[in-house]
This record gives sequence, C-alpha cells and structure tokens, in this order.
Amino acid sequence: MASERPTGLKANKGIELLTWGTPNGVKASIFLEELKEAYGKEYTWQGINISQNIQKEAWFTKLGPNGRIPVIVDHDQGGFAVQEGLAILSYLARHYDPDHRFSFTEPLDVSRAEQWMAWQHGGLGPMQGQANHFVRFAPERIPYGIQRYVGETERLVGILDNHLKDTDYLVGNRYSTADIASFGWVNALRFSGVDIDRFPNLKAWYERILARPAVVRGLAVPSRSPFGNDLYAQKLKEDKEFAEKESKKYEEIKAAKEKYNYKYSSP
Amino acid sequence: MASERPTGLKANKGIELLTWGTPNGVKASIFLEELKEAYGKEYTWQGINISQNIQKEAWFTKLGPNGRIPVIVDHDQGGFAVQEGLAILSYLARHYDPDHRFSFTEPLDVSRAEQWMAWQHGGLGPMQGQANHFVRFAPERIPYGIQRYVGETERLVGILDNHLKDTDYLVGNRYSTADIASFGWVNALRFSGVDIDRFPNLKAWYERILARPAVVRGLAVPSRSPFGNDLYAQKLKEDKEFAEKESKKYEEIKAAKEKYNYKYSSP
Repeated sequence: MASERPTGLKANKGIELLTWGTPNGVKASIFLEELKEAYGKEYTWQGINISQNIQKEAWFTKLGPNGRIPVIVDHDQGGFAVQEGLAILSYLARHYDPDHRFSFTEPLDVSRAEQWMAWQHGGLGPMQGQANHFVRFAPERIPYGIQRYVGETERLVGILDNHLKDTDYLVGNRYSTADIASFGWVNALRFSGVDIDRFPNLKAWYERILARPAVVRGLAVPSRSPFGNDLYAQKLKEDKEFAEKESKKYEEIKAAKEKYNYKYSSP
Repeated sequence: MASERPTGLKANKGIELLTWGTPNGVKASIFLEELKEAYGKEYTWQGINISQNIQKEAWFTKLGPNGRIPVIVDHDQGGFAVQEGLAILSYLARHYDPDHRFSFTEPLDVSRAEQWMAWQHGGLGPMQGQANHFVRFAPERIPYGIQRYVGETERLVGILDNHLKDTDYLVGNRYSTADIASFGWVNALRFSGVDIDRFPNLKAWYERILARPAVVRGLAVPSRSPFGNDLYAQKLKEDKEFAEKESKKYEEIKAAKEKYNYKYSSP
C-alpha cells in the first residue's frame, strides 16, 4: 500500500475529502454521503492514515494547519480548504444543502443546532478522545486519567440521553448536522469504556441513525472501523481472547473509578 | 456574599449573561462589551461562582444543560438560552452585529472565522483546560498528564503564532469574534505553564487586543482574574513567595517534559 500513500490533492472539481475512519472523520463522510443521496452531489476522498502521520506533512498542513483529519477542499471555490469538523459540517450545509434537509432556517433552530455541534466539538469529542487515550493508547497505566475521562464522557452522554427522552433527534425533532456531529463519538462509546446500554434514549437515537444507508456508507470511508459499537459487540461474541482482554479493560476502568470515588451524576 | 448567591434570572429584557472570569467566560463578556461600545447594546450579568457549583443547580442547567459557564439568555427572544462559547459568539454576531463590525459576510471569510472559533473551541480550550487541571488542580502530581497537555497547548499556540506572522488578526486582517474566542485562553498561558514570550507574533496580537478598552472591561466581568498574563507577571515581580512557588511549578513541567522526551514541534 506504500505506493498509495497520498502526497497531495487528486481531484480538480467538487469536494475532496481527506479523512480517516475516526469519530471525527466520519462526520464529514456521513454528511457528504447524505448530500450525495439527497442532491446527487458527488465527492472524492483520500484516506489519510493517521498512524503514519500523513496529516503532519507539509502538503496537508498547508490545507489544514492543525494537522488533523478531516479536512475538505472545495475545488469549485478555488481550492478553499476547511478544517475542524464543526466548520466542515456548517460549510457544507451553507453551500450544498439549499433545501435545508439537514440544516435549519429558523434563527433559534440555527442556534440550537450550533449549540449541539459546539457541545460535541468542545466537550464530547475532546473528552472522549482523552478517554480513548488513557484507556487504550497511553504508554503507561494511569488510573486517575482513566476515571477522569471515562467519567466525563459518561456525564456528557448522560446529557444527550436526557435531551433525547422526548425527541427523536437533537434539534426540531428531525435529523440534522447536529445529530451527525455526535454520532461518530457515540458509535465509539464501547471502545471508550462506556456502556451505551445504560443510556436507552441515546441508544435508540444511535440505532435510528445507524439505520440510514448514507450513514453506513459514510462509516465505510475509507474503511469501516472495527471499534464501532456494533462490530465491537460482534467481536466480543466471536473472539474469546478479545473478550477476555476487554473484560480486563473494563475491570481496570471500574477499579480506577473506585480508587477515586467516582460517582456517576448526570445530568 | 452568601446572600448574593444567584438563584435564578434577574433581568426581563435584553441579554443576560451568566458567567465567571475564566478563559471561556470572558469570551462572552468581551464581545458584549464590544457590542455595547459599538451599538449601545446594553446587557445584564450575574457572576456564577463555579467553585460553589452554582452552574450545576437546576435553575442553571435548565438554561445550560451542560452545566458550564458562560450561558446567555436573550429576554427579547422569549428567554432563549444559549450555551457553548462558540454558539454564544455566533448568536450574538447574527442578532446584534448588524454592520458586521466583528463578523463577516463574504462566505469564505465566514468559514475562516468559524474554523478558528472551532479550532479554539475543540482544541486550545479543552487542551489548555486539561493543562490547567494537571499543572494546578489535580489531586496528585502526574508528570505524564502535565507534559501531555502543556505540550499540546504549546503545539496549538504555535499554530496561532505561525498564522499571525503575516497578519494582525486571525481573519481578514481585522478584529473579529475569531480573535475574541482565543484571547481568553492566550491570556491564561503563563498560568497554564506556557511561556508566551516564545511566541512573538502571538504576543503582539495578544497585546493588540488587550489595548482595546472593551476587552479590559470584559475581563473585569465579574472581576478580573489574577491569572491573566499581565497580572501574573506583575505578581511574580511583587510577591517573592509566589515567584518561588511558580518557579518550582515551571521546574516540575520541565522535568515532566524531559521524563517523556517531549520535543516542541509546531507547526
């Protein structure tokens, strides 16, 4: 695959998406798949393998100075580049959702959607990202970090769960970019050490969104992560060794919470 | 002061701001002071002492379900509440900056401002917030956490510094909500263990913004934090005991970075 390592843009019209199958990455690909289904809007993508740090290379940071995926480039706007998930969703909605099928026109609904997107962008995303780091990737085991971020993720999804008790979607009772923003992170909850079954309204919302064909297609760009809740649950059933490792991981989280007297209280 | 503990809203017209003098809080108060100076738009505020967890009380979370400051309530829009700093800046710009003195109309500039606001909201804010936690507030000393978040904060401000080498402000070379979003966090860099002197373009931008009377007034709502870069530097000079403590703090950060072979590289 080394020969396929991206070294620059490859399209010259439409939207080009630079992404990877992470909770932030799938926001962009899911929305682009929805726009394709709704309006026939085509797009091009390239997989940016973040474990190879392609997103830190000069050609990439010229487009997305933060050195993170996803980034989109709009070749129909002079190659204008957009970084940051929230800004990508908003840009695409303003330019390519003329009928507002996934966005809003009523000013207070516009703000409601923006608030939920910002809540994900500044809260659920970064904090669940830190949970993943301490639970999965940190070079040493740090119980304080584990319980701090798994706990904060639980607090945050508790707020989503509570909001969803009387509505099917986050804003105006219809599917929008507000839902798309949080979906990828909710899809990774089990991987992050959070039991989604404890949040029944959230779980129903998650399954409602996962039933959309465009969402499933978006999750497969560039390839479907094995850490989504459904594939994770399937692997638990099929792979005994994996199940044992994961069971130990959950025990570690539980012990870390106990050590610091963590108590769930949300909202 | 116990008798002044807020227990609900106090205004019935205009914007009411619920806030505290934190890097996120001052975003809202600075922008409201700018709107007051530019348009004569009045607002009311209440100080929400976050160390007393007033932001977790039911009357507050009914307005801002995330339980965080700042929150604004627009009494002229039926008491509509807005949480999340990015969403507050955007709401106020859409509704109360009709001449776009602090915001943009050209679609690509609209996106540029949104990208920088999202970059702050999802990156600089949460990561510098974690730096503050591990450097200042965590119940135990965790070198891994200290160097991880101080290092990430340095990476992020390096990006700002680089962007500012050819421009006085983040978007369109004029002061806007994009600048206001990051200013409060840059104002806390010394407190977070980052030496702003290493970032000369950023420091010049910071001083340019701090020279605005509305910014100084906004920083004083509800009262000026002693942890802003200027007051922090002043205290270092005047308070020998404080200076010694801070010197040890910086030594601790340095040692944590060395332990994990942290190397600055940004952008």
